[in-house]
Amino acid sequence: MPNTATLPSTHPLLEAHRETLDAAARALRERSYYSRYPESPSPRVYGETAPQDGQAAHEATLNKDFEALADQPSTGAVVGSEVSPFGPRLGIRYPQLDVPRAMEAALAAMPAWRDAGAEVRAAVCTEIVERINRRSHEMAHAVMHTSGQPFVMSFQAGGPHAQDRALEAVVAALEEQRRFPASVVWEKPAKGEPVRMQKDYRVVPRGVALVIGCNTFPTWNAYPGLFASLATGNPVIVKPHPRAVLPLALTVAMAREVLAEAGFDRALVQLAVEDDGGTLAKDLALDDAVKIIDYTGGPGFGGWLETEAAARGKLVYTEKAGLNSVVVDSTDDLRGTLGNLAFSFSLYSGQMCTAPQNVFVPATGVGTDEGHLSAEEFTGRLAEAISRFTADDARAVEILGATVNDDVRGRATDVPALAERLGGEVVLDSRAVTHASYPDAVVRTPALVAVDAGNATAYTQECFGPVAFVVRTADTAESLRIFADTVREHGGMTAAVYSSDEQVLEAARDAAAEAGVALSENLTGQVFVNQTAAFSDLHGTGANPAANAAYADAAFVANRFRVITSRRHV
Amino acid sequence: MPNTATLPSTHPLLEAHRETLDAAARALRERSYYSRYPESPSPRVYGETAPQDGQAAHEATLNKDFEALADQPSTGAVVGSEVSPFGPRLGIRYPQLDVPRAMEAALAAMPAWRDAGAEVRAAVCTEIVERINRRSHEMAHAVMHTSGQPFVMSFQAGGPHAQDRALEAVVAALEEQRRFPASVVWEKPAKGEPVRMQKDYRVVPRGVALVIGCNTFPTWNAYPGLFASLATGNPVIVKPHPRAVLPLALTVAMAREVLAEAGFDRALVQLAVEDDGGTLAKDLALDDAVKIIDYTGGPGFGGWLETEAAARGKLVYTEKAGLNSVVVDSTDDLRGTLGNLAFSFSLYSGQMCTAPQNVFVPATGVGTDEGHLSAEEFTGRLAEAISRFTADDARAVEILGATVNDDVRGRATDVPALAERLGGEVVLDSRAVTHASYPDAVVRTPALVAVDAGNATAYTQECFGPVAFVVRTADTAESLRIFADTVREHGGMTAAVYSSDEQVLEAARDAAAEAGVALSENLTGQVFVNQTAAFSDLHGTGANPAANAAYADAAFVANRFRVITSRRHV
Repeated sequence: MPNTATLPSTHPLLEAHRETLDAAARALRERSYYSRYPESPSPRVYGETAPQDGQAAHEATLNKDFEALADQPSTGAVVGSEVSPFGPRLGIRYPQLDVPRAMEAALAAMPAWRDAGAEVRAAVCTEIVERINRRSHEMAHAVMHTSGQPFVMSFQAGGPHAQDRALEAVVAALEEQRRFPASVVWEKPAKGEPVRMQKDYRVVPRGVALVIGCNTFPTWNAYPGLFASLATGNPVIVKPHPRAVLPLALTVAMAREVLAEAGFDRALVQLAVEDDGGTLAKDLALDDAVKIIDYTGGPGFGGWLETEAAARGKLVYTEKAGLNSVVVDSTDDLRGTLGNLAFSFSLYSGQMCTAPQNVFVPATGVGTDEGHLSAEEFTGRLAEAISRFTADDARAVEILGATVNDDVRGRATDVPALAERLGGEVVLDSRAVTHASYPDAVVRTPALVAVDAGNATAYTQECFGPVAFVVRTADTAESLRIFADTVREHGGMTAAVYSSDEQVLEAARDAAAEAGVALSENLTGQVFVNQTAAFSDLHGTGANPAANAAYADAAFVANRFRVITSRRHV
Repeated sequence: MPNTATLPSTHPLLEAHRETLDAAARALRERSYYSRYPESPSPRVYGETAPQDGQAAHEATLNKDFEALADQPSTGAVVGSEVSPFGPRLGIRYPQLDVPRAMEAALAAMPAWRDAGAEVRAAVCTEIVERINRRSHEMAHAVMHTSGQPFVMSFQAGGPHAQDRALEAVVAALEEQRRFPASVVWEKPAKGEPVRMQKDYRVVPRGVALVIGCNTFPTWNAYPGLFASLATGNPVIVKPHPRAVLPLALTVAMAREVLAEAGFDRALVQLAVEDDGGTLAKDLALDDAVKIIDYTGGPGFGGWLETEAAARGKLVYTEKAGLNSVVVDSTDDLRGTLGNLAFSFSLYSGQMCTAPQNVFVPATGVGTDEGHLSAEEFTGRLAEAISRFTADDARAVEILGATVNDDVRGRATDVPALAERLGGEVVLDSRAVTHASYPDAVVRTPALVAVDAGNATAYTQECFGPVAFVVRTADTAESLRIFADTVREHGGMTAAVYSSDEQVLEAARDAAAEAGVALSENLTGQVFVNQTAAFSDLHGTGANPAANAAYADAAFVANRFRVITSRRHV
């Protein structure tokens, strides 16, 4: 390597995380089951006092200045206006980032991080994730009170599952960087002596990376981009959603702490907070120093990034929205099918980019192990299953969480008006659920609206939140055709099919391949269409308009760095 | 795999090319020396009658309809106005592609090619390259009489070197596609029975790929994109430069022949020819079916693609132009240094995107094994070396080739006017060379113009062709600073440094890493800064404005396909 003298050939974290990185890299190659971070919030796993400690730590951050980021370059102003979807105002004041000084600091921090090499960067990133994991209970409260997720989901999706996706991004980046040897002696046969050259390959970052977080999954959707960029040598500026700052503030503070302890500059990770209605994301995206942008959120700004920022030569990775579809043909486990779907609709009130929205049911009916059901009967059974699953308020709130914003509430609290506007019929109305601990939270059960397949305008726009459409088609062939067409045109993060007919399943696989969306077949147990497993399932495909990238394949990481060769005769 | 039934699990070409693909993949991983296609045009290598056969085949294509593409969807019109830079009009009439029908045919051909799988596609692509290789002598004439390259270079760069880059793209694409297993059983521990799922991963193409060729390296610069897209399942439309159609017409015809023989649709590769001044490249780039664009050529249209086409969500890979720089500090082999540089300036009259343009020479002079030379003395010795190397017309034409267009001729034939306009001094004027066989060819030796470092406008624009600048700097530190700044801002495909001081070399490596350009150090023998070796050297870095991609790293191939998962319980 050109800079062997400056390379820390042994960094204490290298040895500490070698086994973890080896195991994670192996899992990624095999796409077999792997999880580094236990998903159970149980005290038996995370320690007897972990739940109370986490809650206490969370409460200690409320209603005061966020001191852990006081060392960032600041304008002197404070920002922050987070209100929990469950009701309480968080009252946390974050220092406002001085963007020009932050960019300078980030660029100044870059060379030493670059020259540390891919292996050291991977180890330091892993240490960051490990530290985040140890504060998973505190993080769960932060995610819950910014996203509105129920507690256990906040713990799992905001904690260990997000951490697994972070580690996945770290090893995906490491694997790609390892593809070039540090040095090779190249020997070309020639008359007489061969021509011999030493060639050194140096991984260099692109510049400052920007990560734009979302309201509903502040950590899960931010970590892949954050860790992919950092692991490939790029300093990262994290711009959280104004209503979901705390989870990323905690994350950035821990990252900076680990970086400093590991001998690197804290400025490699910085947090840029603003209040609602600002233009900071756009301003940062247009900053000349920013070369990589990861974004999760609505299609409006995502589309702007894909056109305007991409046109300026920035790498843009987006996850926006789409029409998640379920094609129902037949099943030999009706009970399992209905239970699985009821859960998928209910989880976090359908406020997941992966939650199903359009259920295609054929007029020819649905063959089941409980006999042949007409389309109406099947739809009725589905409505019943949802009602039963969410019947008990105390249990329902632990699945539904709280509605995250007024937009979602507007749709959920007047489904008949929505159905009328769209030309559909209410099959199941949304029900208001009372949260015993948080009476101010607006909690709603999923609604079902039936529409005809001909009424495409009704079901070809994303309807985020607890409203799903039952789309009545002529038959399964039409269901598959509309499914493929709508996803290809409007995007989709997930898709599911229920059929006991192998030919239908094959056709569904072909339709999914044409539409460019991952397919879950006959899920009747404890795996749900809206959930993906790190190291095995891709999140998004990059093959339809819902997202231009996937967590985390080679395409997600390989262009975040470049390789510079130097060669000389030996 | 979802479609095991339709998968040709054994294709006869799989076995035929397994060893080649294995060896090429190994070389790519190790970046060690590898070449599949012999670079010597000798009859001992390519067969006793190969030279005459190639020439006869070439002559047989002249002044008639290009029948080998008669089966493409055509408008019925013919196009073609190629004139050899050596003088003769080629007189070949190509069928004009009917673009809407061609797009339809390409999309119809895609599913079977997709479902053939990565291994079969790689084998078929290799067969195409093998067939191209067997016609290397014919291709050499086609490249010579479209680009103006001298014959041996036309043979090597247009033939085996381009073929090696093609094979490199094929295996780079194969390696990335192999990263996903076809299928895995995923087993998550759970209370009682583990959760077991089968997950299938299916590689799907993006859509139609467009390859826009250039005038000077019609095959070498088109093959990486062409084969990377084809190997990842995308049908390709090749749009050659209007003055360099024949080499790509031959290529496309052979590709179609092999595809048909292998059981696939010829429409997977099509040629779209137009005459000078048309807008076909733009029209094709804006076509909705086109999802991937590979471009080599001027920065004007390249920049348009990087903004307008990228903003439309198309993947755009460009190679444009830049300021190739040589930093001269000191040398312990003056003779080797001057000889090597003289060759690099002279080869193909500097009409290579990799040819050196700016030579930074310090006012403090150059330490050499022949004593310390003042900046003026070194510059004088360099001018002498070029003059001596190109002194003999008959030998010079075999290095210089012919000037390719009026733009180059304009600069080369009045260097004093150019120097005056730029505020420089002519150190060595360009000399007209007579080509005995082609008296109409405009052949010119390289000129040297000296400019001060302060006169940045003179040397910060690409001056394509046989004019280079000697930039007088205060010292090597200033040389390195200006080198890094100008390449970072304006781009650069190559860079070289001459120094016998290890500290200067280290500083040069850092400057090259900052500038994002590959560095050749102390080349004094038979390796030249303007040449890169497939499987070992990257061509371009993607890290400066000259090119947004490199032949052929993972980033060049990994995003040309996407992976669609289907999962189900087992």
